[in-house]
Amino acid sequence: MSRVRVAIVGGSGYTGGELARLLLFHPQVELTQVASNGHAGQYLHSMHPNLRKLSSIKMCHPDDLTPCDAILLCLPHGVSAGVIDRYRQLAPRVIDLSADFRLRSASLYERWYGEEHAAPQVLSESVYGLPELHRAELAEATLVSGTGCMATAAILALIPLYRAGLVDLQMPLVVDAKVGSSAAGATPSQGSHHPERSGAVRSFQPTGHRHTAELIQELGGVTGEKQLQQRIAFSATSVELVRGILVTAQVFMRERLDERALWRAYREVYQREPFIRIVKERNGVYRYPEPKILAGSNYCDVGFELDAEQQRVVAISALDNLMKGAAGNAVQALNCMFGWDETLGLTFPGLHPA
Amino acid sequence: MSRVRVAIVGGSGYTGGELARLLLFHPQVELTQVASNGHAGQYLHSMHPNLRKLSSIKMCHPDDLTPCDAILLCLPHGVSAGVIDRYRQLAPRVIDLSADFRLRSASLYERWYGEEHAAPQVLSESVYGLPELHRAELAEATLVSGTGCMATAAILALIPLYRAGLVDLQMPLVVDAKVGSSAAGATPSQGSHHPERSGAVRSFQPTGHRHTAELIQELGGVTGEKQLQQRIAFSATSVELVRGILVTAQVFMRERLDERALWRAYREVYQREPFIRIVKERNGVYRYPEPKILAGSNYCDVGFELDAEQQRVVAISALDNLMKGAAGNAVQALNCMFGWDETLGLTFPGLHPA
Amino acid sequence: MSRVRVAIVGGSGYTGGELARLLLFHPQVELTQVASNGHAGQYLHSMHPNLRKLSSIKMCHPDDLTPCDAILLCLPHGVSAGVIDRYRQLAPRVIDLSADFRLRSASLYERWYGEEHAAPQVLSESVYGLPELHRAELAEATLVSGTGCMATAAILALIPLYRAGLVDLQMPLVVDAKVGSSAAGATPSQGSHHPERSGAVRSFQPTGHRHTAELIQELGGVTGEKQLQQRIAFSATSVELVRGILVTAQVFMRERLDERALWRAYREVYQREPFIRIVKERNGVYRYPEPKILAGSNYCDVGFELDAEQQRVVAISALDNLMKGAAGNAVQALNCMFGWDETLGLTFPGLHPA
Amino acid sequence: MSRVRVAIVGGSGYTGGELARLLLFHPQVELTQVASNGHAGQYLHSMHPNLRKLSSIKMCHPDDLTPCDAILLCLPHGVSAGVIDRYRQLAPRVIDLSADFRLRSASLYERWYGEEHAAPQVLSESVYGLPELHRAELAEATLVSGTGCMATAAILALIPLYRAGLVDLQMPLVVDAKVGSSAAGATPSQGSHHPERSGAVRSFQPTGHRHTAELIQELGGVTGEKQLQQRIAFSATSVELVRGILVTAQVFMRERLDERALWRAYREVYQREPFIRIVKERNGVYRYPEPKILAGSNYCDVGFELDAEQQRVVAISALDNLMKGAAGNAVQALNCMFGWDETLGLTFPGLHPA
Repeated sequence: MSRVRVAIVGGSGYTGGELARLLLFHPQVELTQVASNGHAGQYLHSMHPNLRKLSSIKMCHPDDLTPCDAILLCLPHGVSAGVIDRYRQLAPRVIDLSADFRLRSASLYERWYGEEHAAPQVLSESVYGLPELHRAELAEATLVSGTGCMATAAILALIPLYRAGLVDLQMPLVVDAKVGSSAAGATPSQGSHHPERSGAVRSFQPTGHRHTAELIQELGGVTGEKQLQQRIAFSATSVELVRGILVTAQVFMRERLDERALWRAYREVYQREPFIRIVKERNGVYRYPEPKILAGSNYCDVGFELDAEQQRVVAISALDNLMKGAAGNAVQALNCMFGWDETLGLTFPGLHPA
Repeated sequence: MSRVRVAIVGGSGYTGGELARLLLFHPQVELTQVASNGHAGQYLHSMHPNLRKLSSIKMCHPDDLTPCDAILLCLPHGVSAGVIDRYRQLAPRVIDLSADFRLRSASLYERWYGEEHAAPQVLSESVYGLPELHRAELAEATLVSGTGCMATAAILALIPLYRAGLVDLQMPLVVDAKVGSSAAGATPSQGSHHPERSGAVRSFQPTGHRHTAELIQELGGVTGEKQLQQRIAFSATSVELVRGILVTAQVFMRERLDERALWRAYREVYQREPFIRIVKERNGVYRYPEPKILAGSNYCDVGFELDAEQQRVVAISALDNLMKGAAGNAVQALNCMFGWDETLGLTFPGLHPA
Repeated sequence: MSRVRVAIVGGSGYTGGELARLLLFHPQVELTQVASNGHAGQYLHSMHPNLRKLSSIKMCHPDDLTPCDAILLCLPHGVSAGVIDRYRQLAPRVIDLSADFRLRSASLYERWYGEEHAAPQVLSESVYGLPELHRAELAEATLVSGTGCMATAAILALIPLYRAGLVDLQMPLVVDAKVGSSAAGATPSQGSHHPERSGAVRSFQPTGHRHTAELIQELGGVTGEKQLQQRIAFSATSVELVRGILVTAQVFMRERLDERALWRAYREVYQREPFIRIVKERNGVYRYPEPKILAGSNYCDVGFELDAEQQRVVAISALDNLMKGAAGNAVQALNCMFGWDETLGLTFPGLHPA
Repeated sequence: MSRVRVAIVGGSGYTGGELARLLLFHPQVELTQVASNGHAGQYLHSMHPNLRKLSSIKMCHPDDLTPCDAILLCLPHGVSAGVIDRYRQLAPRVIDLSADFRLRSASLYERWYGEEHAAPQVLSESVYGLPELHRAELAEATLVSGTGCMATAAILALIPLYRAGLVDLQMPLVVDAKVGSSAAGATPSQGSHHPERSGAVRSFQPTGHRHTAELIQELGGVTGEKQLQQRIAFSATSVELVRGILVTAQVFMRERLDERALWRAYREVYQREPFIRIVKERNGVYRYPEPKILAGSNYCDVGFELDAEQQRVVAISALDNLMKGAAGNAVQALNCMFGWDETLGLTFPGLHPA
């Protein structure tokens, strides 16, 4: 059977490069086109030196893109919504990795992004591309949204507690995300200049982070509400790391419970998930999820710790922001859309040590 | 006037070395003795290569220590309490940098340290060595306790909010501390082995951290209670950094307020403090406190961000765990004990870039 | 066809773990046994957390190993020579990754390792396991030696110049190797303790490095001598990096030449090599070989720069010390021994950014 | 006595900021003006957050500078030569930290900088500002040049060998410099973008580095030639570090000698130097010079290792490129120019751990 022809738009950035790396080795896919506004005419490996000797693709201009089976859009936030129709005409299946189609509610978008949505009529067609929550819908979808990297980590850490109805919704949910530098993209700035960024532990968004909106929508979906009414205190800090996110979520329980109840909740939801590992060890260095051993892998490791007296759970998750937080998750979603084994092209397990 | 003769016990560790560095340049102090159990007979700079050419002190055995004006103890937690009497006989003023004399309540100690205190009768004599809270008592003290590095950062971030009575004590206080590797001391372990520790974002104590007890005591003192009754959710994460702590504290307000009220609360408490800077900028890379520019300095930078709608404040603080979190703060306390200018020996401002 | 059954001895170290990672995904291999002296009875993933969910192998004691098709030995230097006979009885093909069988000459071994070789009679049977130099011999070999990680990088940087007869052998060959922390193995020490090792640029072996002996043997082989008579000034420096080696080799030419002559020499030798890329760009960030984009990959990137006036070439190479410098190269050698495609199990290209 | 009034031109860059930090604490100096083209009107601490609370200086435009006692110029290379006259009219003593006045010979400048010098008539008046070589001249100088950071490290590593006449000048001198990111300045670029620069071991100038010219001039001066005729193979590599340089220099001796001869040569030259330490230990982690413990200090640590058989010496040196490699050395030169104790304002010893 012939391979599915896939195109990437926005191929010069980090997510575009990571998608290219994955698709070049995907057994069912042929990466046929990579478009870039600023780098048309250049070899793919001129931007992504890890792809030297692996591909002779030259990037084209987005206007020169020809029809194919699926398109993956890596455009800046706010741009996709204005051009989505054109790409949907070029391919029957589109995955947009920007934030433009993550929220089903135009008003939720407006509240968190501070501007009207450019294509609100399309929102209801888009599926939030997290297979762990929307596997069945993905199989039917023609437009899928990528997911926010920190939102993905937080949601996956918390789903079991919300699904099991354990959470005291009167208490705040406090989410602290520690993030590597690649999450801010490929464009240099004063803040990303190495002497300034190296060794940073930098609170860059203590309040008002937009990924909060995805938690409101998706955890709301899990509890059965449309939007979560609970107070969410989301805070994000840059740390010294290129790839990786660690989420530490503090959440309070409705009643006193023991560790076995938590194990049950997490196993119930995750035991058959190919890319979720429950990590909670008594000994050793890697007792909880940790991003450094996940670079390049599509795993989201999830763990938890109980403070029984305070009826508090610390839910912890780790992932590679360019993989399960972006490109890897998008390929997993693509696998769902085409009915393939979800792990195709995503088997690299990460390195130790690293 | 002749200089005050000071001795360090436990001179081979990181805190002992940092004390030595500070005292060698202190205008009122002569560092006359440095004792070490395991390294007696060796030059001080054999353990602390930054002190080469600066001192010809050879470390002695603790048993060989002779009387002097002040002793600074850098012993492992749990050891000080058993030997404190001997050192108090050798010098009229003792600062103990272990955790043994931080808590005034033996039962609070027992609850958090899991064992009976070895010298409970001494607890009431000890002053918690944070000049910002106990300046007056330090001037009279003969026994002063060092302060926990994360506790110091958290307490200093939060004092203004608690002192102004702004905090809703029915809601939890959530403290997330990010910590560099030197906070774990000078002894190698599997977890500190560079290939394992480098690039780590490692949740090492999501619940049950002992520094919580210092928050209970000191924030309790600020509110006028003996011990804070509020729920404290304290969580600690190792990050890639040698020196430094960033604390992100999430705390909820009793009523809706605006940013000016917060500025007022922070300025009121800190405007005359020599080692506290309120850091809150609209622009630039360093908008909030950040530990990387504090290495070697005694500053604790403090900032805050308001989420008005949620009545939530994110209080942020940064310090060097070996300086304001240990040795620097101890020298500041020593300055208080002797009635000197608090900044003596502590003027190094930190480096940029670093 | 049934898979080849392979065993690893010394499975708890970094090279053993890396071999396990590679062999678990190798299409022609079944990893049937992993032996460890100190960790028998434990799961493989207890030492290598990146292998969680991928293997349920429990490590056995080396004494309990049963016969199989090939054994890969990851024993400390000096141990292999004493036990090699036993392992050769257990399997018809053995790859020893220690330094014990790298040198064909017992006297060369004695000179650089400072002791008599324990099994000199075996040396002539062993093949130096670098496919780029010994592909044909590997196909017939029953005992193959792993290669020194720095030696591999240096040899691969220099082969084209020596093979083309361009080098002035009267002048010294100066090799400066920059090395990441994983090259020193999995055992913690004072020097590997994170606060000491982080940010280090540490000259750890300015003279006398044992890998020099491999250059003497293998570059000698290339020039047709038995041992290279040229002076070799080899120097090694630890840098802040977990995986990776950069070699900067300064070598002087017999006569004035131009860049095209160098291109010809390098292309001649490497154009058909699957794991060597010639990296030499006019623009961009990655103009020369660089280890950071090679972590986890089996590439050795090779480049050069000409100082025509001085008749000097700077030959530069980069690799991942645990991959092309150890485990990856061993799997490539295994592929040669069994007559498989050399790239089997070794297709991961490395990450960007990383 | 009133303090000497000093101005900095180019105060927004890293060297300018470091000068400001040093001069703010200098007991004989009053920092009266800081000029910046791009940041006039802004507070000094807006660019250098470590100076918060220490200075209320606002930067002025260079055109608004008024006469003072000394000016330190931190202008881009190539700019100083065009404007030097104006600044010499404003102050009787000028230190220029660019490369414009490092070389006395206009033809040497032209050969290495690829363009004619803009003010060749001034070259003979300028003193190469390395106190270890030109202390006496500095006392009389009105124009002093800063020194190249890598050149400084290399020259200080090698002076004793050249002065003692030990070096075989027929053999090449090979200098490999490893450099931190701050040496490239404060302006962001694709190559300094954190995801690209972090963990780099990047050969950025394998041949043709301009600092070579300073070695030709200064080592030539030591041997008594005007310019060194020996072949110099200089190579520079970026490593993961913000501040710091390690130089590994390979140099061949005229005859066989023993370690005592080397000790004699180094002690002879350096035993009375306040900022040079000979570092060569048998044990411990810090056996050779290492930049990480020198951040913020003005030391240049120097060491050596002998390969007797090859008549080879590996000379090793470490310094902080912004201190002994730029601003710290300039302050030391300023101290010489005014006849003060050379260590004034330069006593910070560096941190351990760091």
